[in-house]
Amino acid sequence: MRHSSRSLVDPFIVMDVMEAARAAEDAGRHIIHMEVGQPGSGAPEAARARLAQEMEAGPLGYTVALGRPDLRAGIAALYGEWYYGVDLDPGRVVLTAGASGAFLLAFTALFDAGAKVALGEPCYPSYRQILTALSLEPVGLQTHAETRYQPVPDQLTDDLDGLIVASPANPTGTMLFEPEMRALAEACTAKDISLISDEIYHGLQYEGRAVSALEVTDDVYVINSFSKYFSMTGWRLGWMVVPPDHVRIIERLAQNMFICPPHAAQVAALGALQPEGRAELDRHRETYAKNRDILLKGLAEAGLTETAPADGAFYVYADVSTFTDDARAFSAEILDKAGVAVTPGLDFDKARGAGTLRFSYARSTADIEEGVARLIGFMAARKG
Amino acid sequence: MRHSSRSLVDPFIVMDVMEAARAAEDAGRHIIHMEVGQPGSGAPEAARARLAQEMEAGPLGYTVALGRPDLRAGIAALYGEWYYGVDLDPGRVVLTAGASGAFLLAFTALFDAGAKVALGEPCYPSYRQILTALSLEPVGLQTHAETRYQPVPDQLTDDLDGLIVASPANPTGTMLFEPEMRALAEACTAKDISLISDEIYHGLQYEGRAVSALEVTDDVYVINSFSKYFSMTGWRLGWMVVPPDHVRIIERLAQNMFICPPHAAQVAALGALQPEGRAELDRHRETYAKNRDILLKGLAEAGLTETAPADGAFYVYADVSTFTDDARAFSAEILDKAGVAVTPGLDFDKARGAGTLRFSYARSTADIEEGVARLIGFMAARKG
Repeated sequence: MRHSSRSLVDPFIVMDVMEAARAAEDAGRHIIHMEVGQPGSGAPEAARARLAQEMEAGPLGYTVALGRPDLRAGIAALYGEWYYGVDLDPGRVVLTAGASGAFLLAFTALFDAGAKVALGEPCYPSYRQILTALSLEPVGLQTHAETRYQPVPDQLTDDLDGLIVASPANPTGTMLFEPEMRALAEACTAKDISLISDEIYHGLQYEGRAVSALEVTDDVYVINSFSKYFSMTGWRLGWMVVPPDHVRIIERLAQNMFICPPHAAQVAALGALQPEGRAELDRHRETYAKNRDILLKGLAEAGLTETAPADGAFYVYADVSTFTDDARAFSAEILDKAGVAVTPGLDFDKARGAGTLRFSYARSTADIEEGVARLIGFMAARKG
Repeated sequence: MRHSSRSLVDPFIVMDVMEAARAAEDAGRHIIHMEVGQPGSGAPEAARARLAQEMEAGPLGYTVALGRPDLRAGIAALYGEWYYGVDLDPGRVVLTAGASGAFLLAFTALFDAGAKVALGEPCYPSYRQILTALSLEPVGLQTHAETRYQPVPDQLTDDLDGLIVASPANPTGTMLFEPEMRALAEACTAKDISLISDEIYHGLQYEGRAVSALEVTDDVYVINSFSKYFSMTGWRLGWMVVPPDHVRIIERLAQNMFICPPHAAQVAALGALQPEGRAELDRHRETYAKNRDILLKGLAEAGLTETAPADGAFYVYADVSTFTDDARAFSAEILDKAGVAVTPGLDFDKARGAGTLRFSYARSTADIEEGVARLIGFMAARKG
């Protein structure tokens, strides 16, 4: 059976790291996992309790395509809490099958086959692959340390149809602050470029306030999810905020492409939004904040000083090009000698990722402490 | 903000019926729902118990993209039970975000923008809309009562890239038996047409055995789901069986487009597959069988005798063109005068759906009995 050409997306190199880590564990070794981009914690107790109760009360049938109205209202209320001056109409909130489902809907709603969509590199690798799968053309914009590895208006050319920004970003953890976000939004409007703002790591910022694109424009698709701050990865629930005149377009697409987002996850999310759920989640954030300090200090001690500003998310992105020109081999060496799994930058940045590593600090503080000690020892031995 | 042209998919006309039914209920009327394509029952008790237990045991994080190996094995085992001579490798089973997610993956894996994909009409309306959203060209093949409203090999032209078949079908309930399925599969192979077999209603057949395309070829994408026989609509879990050399292609696409299917739904599905879950589901099927008999007899008594062979699923599709040339107005009249919500055929067949209605018998037997009595009274009054 033939397959399409758009199905030939790139493999994830991090999978090789995860496979090697698993093989090492199977062989009896103790591995510290700094390669994984998901919380070690699960859904809050309030989320699980809500689902346990509601699934016994009646069938969890299809919801309407845009998601349960009570959950859409709960999410809209978050914007009033998290951001200055955003009074969000719940009618603009669309529940989706993870942020992944939001990207599928957004790209389909905004772009026809052949459209060019820009993304700042390094970035979340699936942007590129989803664009390819939808017959769109990803256009990589090389970003630099001086601009916090974020794209800038000067990079936007007239031939672009779309721009994806992420703040806090994966893999760098860097944020776009208000002036930079505003400048990008204005440039997009001026050049008729559709702006998509990935805000999936909002709620996880440690210095400075995370800015939503909705603070500077309504002419944007904002994408978020219950996977990161809300610690509900496997539940596959995300959301979008779209311009008012796009709600109906998205509704029709969602009815056909998804029918509805997972109902059980919607119920659990309602629980997570309650005060006791939020309190549990805020404790996770405190853990990340502590882990981040330990990791940044430890990396510096290990001599890995060229790190991007770790504004948010749970990643530190390090330029290791003074130590290696093959990050994949370097990460294999770290796994082998130090027993620490880390991600080579190649998935995020094909051009320059051979000189970078991503360290995740989403796991327990004890793990981060142990990982840091091992990395310091490894780098000292390598130097010596 | 601009939107794409591929985002302009058709609205569902059934939504107007559902909205009118809700308005009538809000006004205090009692409505019998024969318009809805989902079971009135929920997930089996064994499914809910399994999830309640497992979600307290540890975080439901991301699973691997193709789904939990234990669930893939459980689904593969079903094929040995349900079909003759199908010994299915669990490695070919792919868990998906509903059958909807399976269609998105299948169409992306098989077809590039502009490809022509045929579907027998009447059919599930979202086939057409998902194809459009993915920049593919749906090609409707008019089917006829003499061939059980199923497409036949003679209709397959050389310019086609794909064919979607469904058995039991929505809206007709008709099945493709072994000779017809084999003939279509052979014609597809001869013409290099990629075959997709929608088997989402398998497990719900009442006369004759449902045939899987896997009984006649391995050169096929088979799509199924936990929504119908398994009564888990809102959980959004489906599956595909793909040719062995397509597993890797689907895996990469799924990693990027979905990350993984909903973990909670996967856990619940494992419970549903257990003997006590299956026993509960088989009781639902017995209810449908009883409902079907009542409905077929009642429609005949009402004078609605031109029905498609109701082999499976939970629908009866009736040609009402001797009574109306406007099924939408006719269904509004039935709702208004009889208090029964039914679906006009326009969503399923643009060309001829103005002369057809779909009756769903997925709800309780008491509802079907009451609905039938009302329909008989309505038709008698209309005639008289």
